[in-house]
Formats: sequence, C-alpha cells, structure tokens
Amino acid sequence: MITINAPCQRVDRNTAIALDQADRLSDFARRFDLPAGLLYLDGNSLGALPRATGDRVRDVVATEWGQGLIRSWNQHDWIGAPLRIGTKIAGLIGADPGEVIVTDSTSANLFKLIVAAMRSQTGRRVILSEKGNFPTDLYMIQGAADLLGAEVRTVDRADIAAALSDEVGLLLLTHVHYKTAECFDMANLTRLAQAKGALVLWDLSHSAGAVELDLNGAHADLAVGCGYKYLNGGPGAPGYLFVARRHLAAMRSPLSGWMGHAAPFQFSDEYAPAEGIERFLCGTPPLLSLLALEVGVDLLREADMAALAAKSRAMGDYFIAAIEQECAGFGLQLASPRDAAQRGSHVSFSHPSAYAIMQALIGRGVIGDFRAPDMLRFGLTPLYLGFEQLWDAVAILRDILTSESWRAEADNGWARVT
Amino acid sequence: MITINAPCQRVDRNTAIALDQADRLSDFARRFDLPAGLLYLDGNSLGALPRATGDRVRDVVATEWGQGLIRSWNQHDWIGAPLRIGTKIAGLIGADPGEVIVTDSTSANLFKLIVAAMRSQTGRRVILSEKGNFPTDLYMIQGAADLLGAEVRTVDRADIAAALSDEVGLLLLTHVHYKTAECFDMANLTRLAQAKGALVLWDLSHSAGAVELDLNGAHADLAVGCGYKYLNGGPGAPGYLFVARRHLAAMRSPLSGWMGHAAPFQFSDEYAPAEGIERFLCGTPPLLSLLALEVGVDLLREADMAALAAKSRAMGDYFIAAIEQECAGFGLQLASPRDAAQRGSHVSFSHPSAYAIMQALIGRGVIGDFRAPDMLRFGLTPLYLGFEQLWDAVAILRDILTSESWRAEADNGWARVT
Repeated sequence: MITINAPCQRVDRNTAIALDQADRLSDFARRFDLPAGLLYLDGNSLGALPRATGDRVRDVVATEWGQGLIRSWNQHDWIGAPLRIGTKIAGLIGADPGEVIVTDSTSANLFKLIVAAMRSQTGRRVILSEKGNFPTDLYMIQGAADLLGAEVRTVDRADIAAALSDEVGLLLLTHVHYKTAECFDMANLTRLAQAKGALVLWDLSHSAGAVELDLNGAHADLAVGCGYKYLNGGPGAPGYLFVARRHLAAMRSPLSGWMGHAAPFQFSDEYAPAEGIERFLCGTPPLLSLLALEVGVDLLREADMAALAAKSRAMGDYFIAAIEQECAGFGLQLASPRDAAQRGSHVSFSHPSAYAIMQALIGRGVIGDFRAPDMLRFGLTPLYLGFEQLWDAVAILRDILTSESWRAEADNGWARVT
Repeated sequence: MITINAPCQRVDRNTAIALDQADRLSDFARRFDLPAGLLYLDGNSLGALPRATGDRVRDVVATEWGQGLIRSWNQHDWIGAPLRIGTKIAGLIGADPGEVIVTDSTSANLFKLIVAAMRSQTGRRVILSEKGNFPTDLYMIQGAADLLGAEVRTVDRADIAAALSDEVGLLLLTHVHYKTAECFDMANLTRLAQAKGALVLWDLSHSAGAVELDLNGAHADLAVGCGYKYLNGGPGAPGYLFVARRHLAAMRSPLSGWMGHAAPFQFSDEYAPAEGIERFLCGTPPLLSLLALEVGVDLLREADMAALAAKSRAMGDYFIAAIEQECAGFGLQLASPRDAAQRGSHVSFSHPSAYAIMQALIGRGVIGDFRAPDMLRFGLTPLYLGFEQLWDAVAILRDILTSESWRAEADNGWARVT
C-alpha cells in the first residue's frame, strides 16, 4: 500500500516519482483521453473520457440505432441496460445484484426515494439533513416535503446524531461532502438512525469510484449516486439508486412511469410496480448517455477498489503536504480533513481570493474549481492521475501565489459546475 | 399539395412513383442513414438516424467532453442546451421562445406538469383522461394523484367533453392516439375545458414533427412530448415540456432540482425556482443524448411543417387505399380514421393474427409494430419515407397474407416498444 505521513515528511518531485513508480494503478491513465499538458483536478465534477467510450458510442449510434433501429431494444438488450449497469455499479459499492438500477438523474432519484421512504414511515413527518448539504439534496427534500406535508429539518454536521428523534422518518446525507470532502461514518450513522426508527438515504455522488463503500456491510437502507463524476460516464450521465432488498417491497416510486411497470408492454391502463428494483424506472432511458456510462463503469470494475481508495488517500496526503510546504505564508487554509480516513477524494483550501486564484490556475492549465465563497477545490482522481502531476500543479499554484499573477485574472465564469 | 382521394381511386406503383416525383420533401431521405432494403415503418416508435448525428456525437464525445472537459459547460454552452433546443422545438409546435424546454423523460415531465397544474387549481380534485390513453400518461396521473389526494377519472373518448365538470382541475390527453392515430381537435377541446375552468395538458409524443401543431393558436395551457419519435433524437432522447407564458409564474415543479434553481451556482440551501421555463429543469441533463436530439430537431426545422403534414396525410391515404385494394378479403380492418384530417402519421389495421403477421413482415424487412391485442401499426414518417416504399410494403403484406406464411412465424418478441 502506498501511503505517506503528510505532515511529518518533506515532499518533492522525487517523492512523487517514487510514489508513481510504486503505483499499481498507473497503467489506467493510458485508458483515458486527457488533453496533453492539462492537469485535470476536476474529475470529481466531470470525470475524464475513457478511450474506449468513443468507439462504443459510435457503435451505439451507427449500428445499434442506425442499423438495428427499434429492434435493438431486444437485439442489443437496450431494455436490460438499466439493470445490467446497475448490477455492475452494485459491485463497486457493496450492494447485491437486484438492489441497484441506473435511471434518471441523481435529483430525480432523490425525489423517488425520499417520497417512497417517507410514505413507508407512518407517523413520522420529519426529513432530517445537514445544513450546507449539496443543494440538490436539500432542494429535492424541500420539493418532496412540500407535497408530503412533511417537515424539513437541517442541522449542523455535529448535531445530526442528537437530532435523531422519533419524529424523524428519513435522514438524508451526502457521504462525502461536495465542498470539504468530509466523510461520514456510514455504518455508525446508519446504526444510530435505525436505532431511532429512521431510514437513511445516502448520496454517494462524491464517493463511488473513489472511496471504499460497503452499503450492505453498513446495513444501509437507501442510496443514490451520480454517473458523471468518478464513474467517468460522461456529461450528465444517468444516476443510479440503491434500495436494500429488505425494503424493496414496501417502497413505491411516485414517478410511476411505464418502464417501471410489472408488464410495460401489456399497455394496461392500471399501474402495477415491477417486483424488482425496476419499479424505480420511470420513462425511456437516454441510451447514448446510458451506454457511455457503462464504459466508465466497466473500466472501474477492472481496478481493485481497495487499491484505488488507498491511492486516493495517499494522493490527498501528498497534495496537502506539498501545498502546505510549497505555498506556506500565502493564506491558504486546509478546508478538508487532514486525516485521510475522514476524507473523500478531493481536497479543498480556503483563501480570500480563491476565485481569482482558481481562474489563474485554469489559465495555466490546472483545472480545479471554485466553490463560493472562498474555496479552491481539487479533485484527485486515483484512476487516471499520478503524483508527479500533483507536484506540477502545486508548483504552478506556488508560482501564481508568488508572482501574484492571479490579481490580473478576469472572471471567465465557468468554474462552477459541481 | 400532394393529395389523393384514397377510397375512390385505384392505386399502383405508378401512382406511388408519381407522388414521389411530386414530393418536394423527397431529398430529406438522403439525410438519414437507413439500412439498405429495409422498409422502416416504425419511425413513430424510434425515429431513424440522421446522417449528421454520428459526426456531431463524435465531436461531443471527443472534443467537448474529452478535450473541453468541465469547461464545456460554458465554452460549448452545455448549460444553455435545454433552453436552446427547447426554443427550436417551440418553433415546430406553435409555441414561443421561453415556453418550451428539453428535460428529463416524457414521463417525468408529465409528473411535473400534472402536479404543478393541480396545485394551481384550488378546489378541484379530479384529473380527467381518456381510457386507453398511452399507459405512461395514465400511470403518471395515478402516481401524482396518489400523492396529491386527487381523483383519477377516465372516460371513453366520446365522453370527454361531457365529463368536464367543475370538479376537474386538469384534462390530460394524447393529441394523436398511440394505437389508432385518432387526433383530437386541440383548439376545440381546450376551449371546452377552459370554459369549465380546467387546464389541459397535451401529450404531443405522436404528433410533433409529423402533424401541424399550433399550441398558442389553440390557446393551449401545457404540453409534453417525446424526442425519439418524429424528432429523430435517438433512443431515449430527452423529452420536452411546454408551459404557456401566462401560466408560468403559477407553476412550480415538484422535482425542484438544482438545475431549475434561480441561481444554481450560488449553492444556497433554499430552493427558489428560476423565473423562466428553466424552473422545470431538475438534475444535470444527459448531454450525449441531449445534443444528439438537437441534430434531429435542426433537420426538421429545415422542412416546411405544412408540407410535411400534407405529405403525412397523403401517405396515410395512399397506404390505406393500397392495403384495402391489394389485401382485400384477408380480414384486415382499418383501425385508424379514414379522414386524414382526423388522423396522425401512423395507420393501424386490426387482424385476429396481427402478431404473427407483423412477425412475418419483420422477417421480410418491413418493420412496423404490433399493439395488443390485435393491431398492426405502421408509422408513415413523411421526412424520410416515400410512396414507392409504401407500395413495396403493401406488396409484401399481400404476399404474406396470400401465402399464409405468417402461420409459420415464431415469436421473436421484440415488436413491442412504443
């Protein structure tokens, strides 16, 4: 296992080179098509393009759609794709086949599971979440609560356990925080919530594909996640959702579309949900985007998730050590946990001029992003990044801070999509 | 204008050739990539592949995603695509810019508008629809009504006007029926419903791109539609929705995702809907599928919609005449309106052995589809089909019926996706 003790040890380019040489995952970088010279530290926002995706999508368009036409629903198993890809994702997150399906967006899936969960929880009217959770999690809670007549309660991170009362039907948390990368202890919070009779819905968007997940080991109830971050599924790739098998029969999707029907092609007038996780399908899935996602998922399945997570932690340690050593005195404050075990796969630093600094970085070919009001966020994707690239990025950051070149940076306004 | 009076006149291959020669739209067939020798009468289920789509999708994958990465949200205006493509579709359906947006699936969009409409209609608790409407329309009504505490009422087509009472908050109809192609008089039903205080939500899935639509001319309230049928957007292309400008401020999406927020990149904890039609966005859109749809929409915008609709009517007239003349005595019964003005762009015939006959047709390269219990459905897409192809398809049907070769056809089970 590659690991360093960041605060205790001087780092330099040679440290990085040694870590890259010891990295058993380093060959995966060649499986991605990244622009030459770019240091892409934003794979937590939009994952890079797997080399195999272009050919796959070309085949889907030219052969499956163009030649197969309507026949491809069966001949190329379009109809089975949401469950097939869901089952592959299940293997990455510690779920069983039949518990995960790919469908719609993360936001829509949040709505389905919030409503399904709250309606299964008679007599409990509170949906609990974290203040400053990723906005769409909070927004979907608000929309669902408004329809359900439920109460939305948000508390600070430290107060969640104490806020679990017998009024709480559902606790919705993002496993790795989108800004700070703080990581919840899934098994512990799940146990605490369940002991109070609440269900827990985990948003895995910033976790899956980068940190180890064991949903069934944690006795998780429900989860959703995103296809376009560490799963490298392409821009706006469909999301996925997980329902523990023990809950499935009690969970009904409010988005009761025909693809989730027990017999969609009988065209009956009455909705009856599919027996399995397919009940959470809604409309016809966007197949170009869906089948591109499968390429990213297949690539991840070739990697050992434990090795990937270990590399992620080591990259975070190295990156923090390098910035704190090379950029000391310029006002950067670590905004992510120093302990790798508490941290996801991105690292954030706060700085009063974070926006302008990020623009300067982007101008120099280091792509991270800015999160209001004062945060520089760097995604350290273990599947296709190496340590030397991190060193190079830090060297450019140091140069920008030293020269104050960021003061000249204009707003070019795009460093903004999660 | 090309037109024939089908019941009165003998048709043959020469009639077809003459009609093709007079067809001002015939050049559009070359803009599509259809398999040689296939007679594809299923473009109402999955539209054919525009030749330009392959290159466009390749560019989206290799350049916009692969090279542009996260920067493409602005540099390639991914963020503006749902409204940009929606505005293009608006021009095809008689809506104004700012009234249409591309997002999610038709099913999800039905849910959004059903809920938004019913919540704007205080004191009215009935959602009215047609028995035998396309299943997902009925299913989404059922799911929404269950949450809203509303009552679902379905009546036969002929009884809709009489069922409009002061209890009805929303009337949801599919403009062209998915089985029979019967077409509602949008302006008339809208006027009747509005006179009773109901809103009307039109499903345009089997209309847009093939028949003339004038939503604002009909004073329509709300509509949804499908991207993968006559818009040729590709399998599972995103759907779109329309909200008349006068209703927009009162309509709030229950799927209150971050992309529909007034300021999505401020990452605030409180949802506030966008002022415009963007409020009906939910999660991040599937860009590969979304941008492929734009190619199909752009192609349709090159065609004159009135000419396209006239050709659609003429094709239906010709096809009915040819079948009734060439296949007389074999038990086929026209299940679609004989009057082209009452008919969408597909034609259905019933037959006790419809399933086996359709399998035999497919085996001979004529792709239509079967709809339970006894219907053969043929999509006559005016943008890329010609009359001689219709003649050829009828000749093969006659041959199958004459030889009774359909009796040998096994179930290959795929002629099933709408």
